[in-house]
Amino acid sequence: MKTLLLIGMGAGDPEHITVQAINALNRVAVFFVLDKGQATEDLVRLRLEICERYIREPDYRVVQVSDPKRNNSTPSYTQGVEDWHEQRAEVFTNLIENQLGEGECGAFLLWGEPGLYDSTLRILDRVRANGCSGFDYQVIPGISSVQALAARHRVPLNDIGQPIRITTGRRLVAEDLDNVVVMLDANCAFQAFIDEDLDIYWGAYIGTSDEILIAGKLADVCEQIKKTREAARQRKGWIMDTYLLRRTH
Amino acid sequence: MKTLLLIGMGAGDPEHITVQAINALNRVAVFFVLDKGQATEDLVRLRLEICERYIREPDYRVVQVSDPKRNNSTPSYTQGVEDWHEQRAEVFTNLIENQLGEGECGAFLLWGEPGLYDSTLRILDRVRANGCSGFDYQVIPGISSVQALAARHRVPLNDIGQPIRITTGRRLVAEDLDNVVVMLDANCAFQAFIDEDLDIYWGAYIGTSDEILIAGKLADVCEQIKKTREAARQRKGWIMDTYLLRRTH
Ligand SMILES: C[S@@+](CC[C@H](N)C(=O)[O-])C[C@H]1O[C@@H](n2cnc3c(N)ncnc32)[C@H](O)[C@@H]1O
Ligand SMILES: C[S@@+](CC[C@H](N)C(=O)[O-])C[C@H]1O[C@@H](n2cnc3c(N)ncnc32)[C@H](O)[C@@H]1O
Repeated sequence: MKTLLLIGMGAGDPEHITVQAINALNRVAVFFVLDKGQATEDLVRLRLEICERYIREPDYRVVQVSDPKRNNSTPSYTQGVEDWHEQRAEVFTNLIENQLGEGECGAFLLWGEPGLYDSTLRILDRVRANGCSGFDYQVIPGISSVQALAARHRVPLNDIGQPIRITTGRRLVAEDLDNVVVMLDANCAFQAFIDEDLDIYWGAYIGTSDEILIAGKLADVCEQIKKTREAARQRKGWIMDTYLLRRTH
Repeated sequence: MKTLLLIGMGAGDPEHITVQAINALNRVAVFFVLDKGQATEDLVRLRLEICERYIREPDYRVVQVSDPKRNNSTPSYTQGVEDWHEQRAEVFTNLIENQLGEGECGAFLLWGEPGLYDSTLRILDRVRANGCSGFDYQVIPGISSVQALAARHRVPLNDIGQPIRITTGRRLVAEDLDNVVVMLDANCAFQAFIDEDLDIYWGAYIGTSDEILIAGKLADVCEQIKKTREAARQRKGWIMDTYLLRRTH
């Protein structure tokens, strides 16, 4: 039997790693690293740093593969993602069959929490559905950017006894505004709600040395966030940001 | 200046602890432990075990205080919680003023993630609002029961690009059923939706040696979960359970 570990690594700060994840790292013979092109070179480097920092006997291999490109021109977003998952499933099957020996343990170091807007689990389901089944797998949770955001702003994620929504920039709607965390937002979706009475807690590159935090009434800080975000994105070449929006009490 | 640390300890497994939390533990002079009565004795013990396991030079004090009881007879749930927070704010003020020396670091070890259905941050806001301000505080995120649940069931928390809701048993409504994680549910709120076509991923005492996991179509496993839950609750005297409900695809 082969084993695959999906290890949550936290959302930027290498100290987000859990003891469970460190123990898992130390069982791994092969790390699979998906290279998503220049923009995420920094993120690949952070993964290797984590391995170097926490693995006591560095006798592991690293297999770097290029991630298939997503076809953004497919009319349906979901269909586009599905096609892309199928291509990645082929890449994964290949890795499991040809790069992982019998009895060996392979791993993916996943950004933040493996269950949150990460496709690896879904791709493994496909790999199995496609008939590659000679492996077992485990998931090791990690600190998500949602939690890192709340911790750095020192705010609770929910109002007393009230629900929380986590969504994407694309899906943010007025009904969410009581209390919502937004991820994967390339277009500052919050600006559509500038006339509502909202508090925003925004953060970019949270947990890293580039961390930027801005909080305030949305109407007051909306422009500042947009400018800061754009300047940072240009400077570094990529940005990761998340925010909590909540009606002002 | 005095410092207070709100340290997320993970949701049951001592290996959920992060390196950041371990480093924080090692700075602490005084741990404040709220004793919530017999039912949570086990949870207090787990906190002390974490201290023993991860603190390198055990020269810390532990101050145990009884948590004020919540008055469940107040007509409004929110008002009941608010009154209770006010009483806890007084307890906290007392701890900060009388049990923490100048320049010392005090800490609360918080179950799971400090930002998720935990009142400590809100109570600290009150403490400051009430005029006790000679302290700084920091939040250290921790693995939540939501993540522990998803990891143990090896399921993603969201459908592709779709929102997630996290809510309480009391607040669960039909609109949530596309994809919802339910916490703080003493009454098996899922049973109201047995006629819908749903998958449920349920877990109790996740991450501990008592862990129980059940997954399946809600209609198939509803009774099994209810029976298992009740038997476990009677056996141990308390239960903590969480579940993910999602429309079957
Ligand atoms: C593909 S999702 C992966 C989320 C990840 N699994 C997690 O748990 O945070 C990427 C999105 O996460 C958010 N994100 C991840 N890391 C972040 C960080 N360090 N600071 C701010 N946002 C971050 C951003 O919204 C980004 O668009
Ligand atoms: C007051 S809330 C605190 C949640 C905590 N801050 C967290 O991040 O998990 C308590 C609820 O969390 C859930 N919970 C906490 N630990 C759990 C565990 N080990 N297994 C299952 N559910 C758990 C249960 O729904 C419980 O009613």
